Amino acid sequence: MCENCGDLTHIVDANGMSRRGLVLGGATLMAGAALVAVSGEANAQSRSTTVAAAAIRPFPVRAWGNDSATSPITVRQIMRRAIGPNDVHLDVLYCGICHSDIHQNRDDTPSQRTTFPVVTGHEIIGRVRAIGSAVTKFKVGDIGGVGAMVDSCGTCKQCLAGREMNCEKGATFTYNTPDKISGGMTSGGYSEGIVVAEHFVLRISPGVNLAATAPLLCAGITTFSPMQHWELEAGQRVGVIGLGGLGHVAVKLAASRGADVTIFTTSPGKVADAQRLGAREAVLWSDTVAMKRLAGQFDLLISTVPQPYPMQPFIDVLGLDGTLVNVGVIDGLQDINGLSLIFSRKSVAGSVIGGIPETQALLDYCALRNITADIELVRTNQIDEAMNRMLNKNVRYRFVIDMAAA
Amino acid sequence: MCENCGDLTHIVDANGMSRRGLVLGGATLMAGAALVAVSGEANAQSRSTTVAAAAIRPFPVRAWGNDSATSPITVRQIMRRAIGPNDVHLDVLYCGICHSDIHQNRDDTPSQRTTFPVVTGHEIIGRVRAIGSAVTKFKVGDIGGVGAMVDSCGTCKQCLAGREMNCEKGATFTYNTPDKISGGMTSGGYSEGIVVAEHFVLRISPGVNLAATAPLLCAGITTFSPMQHWELEAGQRVGVIGLGGLGHVAVKLAASRGADVTIFTTSPGKVADAQRLGAREAVLWSDTVAMKRLAGQFDLLISTVPQPYPMQPFIDVLGLDGTLVNVGVIDGLQDINGLSLIFSRKSVAGSVIGGIPETQALLDYCALRNITADIELVRTNQIDEAMNRMLNKNVRYRFVIDMAAA
Repeated sequence: MCENCGDLTHIVDANGMSRRGLVLGGATLMAGAALVAVSGEANAQSRSTTVAAAAIRPFPVRAWGNDSATSPITVRQIMRRAIGPNDVHLDVLYCGICHSDIHQNRDDTPSQRTTFPVVTGHEIIGRVRAIGSAVTKFKVGDIGGVGAMVDSCGTCKQCLAGREMNCEKGATFTYNTPDKISGGMTSGGYSEGIVVAEHFVLRISPGVNLAATAPLLCAGITTFSPMQHWELEAGQRVGVIGLGGLGHVAVKLAASRGADVTIFTTSPGKVADAQRLGAREAVLWSDTVAMKRLAGQFDLLISTVPQPYPMQPFIDVLGLDGTLVNVGVIDGLQDINGLSLIFSRKSVAGSVIGGIPETQALLDYCALRNITADIELVRTNQIDEAMNRMLNKNVRYRFVIDMAAA
Repeated sequence: MCENCGDLTHIVDANGMSRRGLVLGGATLMAGAALVAVSGEANAQSRSTTVAAAAIRPFPVRAWGNDSATSPITVRQIMRRAIGPNDVHLDVLYCGICHSDIHQNRDDTPSQRTTFPVVTGHEIIGRVRAIGSAVTKFKVGDIGGVGAMVDSCGTCKQCLAGREMNCEKGATFTYNTPDKISGGMTSGGYSEGIVVAEHFVLRISPGVNLAATAPLLCAGITTFSPMQHWELEAGQRVGVIGLGGLGHVAVKLAASRGADVTIFTTSPGKVADAQRLGAREAVLWSDTVAMKRLAGQFDLLISTVPQPYPMQPFIDVLGLDGTLVNVGVIDGLQDINGLSLIFSRKSVAGSVIGGIPETQALLDYCALRNITADIELVRTNQIDEAMNRMLNKNVRYRFVIDMAAA
């Protein structure tokens, strides 16, 4: 694409010479020695027969973000980097709206200040528009997913162990993080296009519901990873605290492992969904009789609530050696009694997304079992409204932006 | 012993008939079909050549306790139960003063109210005075130890797994716990004698320093157990928060495993002890430069401080998958940031003493390696003074009551 005119078919080669590219159905004419565009053999999922050339200069895309914590989310133009040898350029099809997005768009987290303007979104499903010369995992037309991170050093102990989010040199998260490649801050998936290193683009199995798979990239892996790490087994009792975007996926994932799942919710209106999602029951936090009945019963609790709340009633339902894994609260934890942890060797832990290998494993696991999120599609001009509804707990259970409907 | 006259040599037999027992050096005249007193073959450690008959009725012993949270600890008479078939009657030689004793004597813990009068003490070393007919682990004259518990159901899953403190029917702790055998509340080791079921009496290896071994029964096992459970290995970095009775034993135990130990203390006067105890260094909590230098370095922290304190600075020195194990704070935990746990999958856990098999393993481990507590002996009339000095952090590092000096 020409950086002067913005035309994606106007290619600038490695020597700075420009020419008009040919964009043909299923075929791409590439320019630039380091860049190879592979013929797009559209797979069964591909709805596009047109594949563009890989850009060798930064190029603009439309995106949806805001300029301050109190300003609305509006369309704007942001730049994506030139496609390097290992990069994949995705046309974003769907992007889930995660509560973390709200934290950043509204800059409500003292420990994670927002650099405005910001474009959030890290539950991204897209179609490969172009690839760099060294890319082997994708071809043009494939479907790829991007979660909460887009870069890491790739050489440290953690990266080599597939825990890129704990990269010793600092992982680059999908938005509001200093971008070591392009400078500035990263911009997320509320965008019509994104360029991401191949390693951080997940394969999406053919045949899955793409929109409903998008939330697995964050909500899914965030709740799957603790089940793996704390080795949730069939027959064990697991509680899911908070039945929102993360919580409802956690219930499905835990149930799929044969665990005995209980939902803890503050919303009477959600109780009826328990069995459909795979839980034994849903218990209201306010139901002190039920909470007492459940004392000491649980092996694992996954707390998906994004705001601080008194945790002791839940620690009380943990059994011996039980663990409450908080994946939601990013502020101070409230109401944890030392003695109650001591007597039954209980733990309160945290867990963050998962590495790329684990995320791929989750996506493959879900594709095999037809596990997806329960979603409501919204358009790009409905993002603020969707966020407000999330804050009012008025979503069953994840909003996903349909970029094609923008 | 006659329950009317209190004379240990005045034996009441199974038929309620009383007669004068013969108490001879190395030999015991027994009464009661269910009771057998074994000849006391005094071992190398036994300083006594006089062994009394096993009592078949409750009998009085002198003990040191108090009548209210504000009253001093004074001598009094309490009753010990008749010696059942599985019971061991110990003459208490030494009893450590644990911070838990202060909590109970001064009734300062809302979640664990004290029933007064109370006699505390659960780091007990004694000489076997008499045994029940079914006792096989001890003979009269042997040395035995008693820690923080004296009874459990013996048949539940936890008891069978050697985790008697988590007995599903409720373990009986050594003091201030409803006594399922005798009624009333249990009375601890600040006493000249105690009757405990054989299973809860630990073997003490010949040749050890008995007074300095007493604290291992609580301080030792409380810090050893988390090292076992969280699998502290040679070369790992472990921090011990608080250098008191538990802390200094924790340092010795961790160092004995080849771990790289750092002490976190509030007492500048204790820094010099670090290397002698086996630590790499001692860091003052107030040393923000050192705390920053240590960020992300530790695999395991064992927090022995008995009062709530802000935990976040310590969570910050934990590395990936690190765990802070609190064995001291029994009130609300303070200052734990959710995000800091999330990003590096850190945990805050609790741990309580250890089961009888693990406690025996600890005692054997320490005997082999000559690990004991650093102690200061006190007399029974110095208990209050010792407790006040503990609260003022003026002890290096454990007070032990010398009952023979009473």
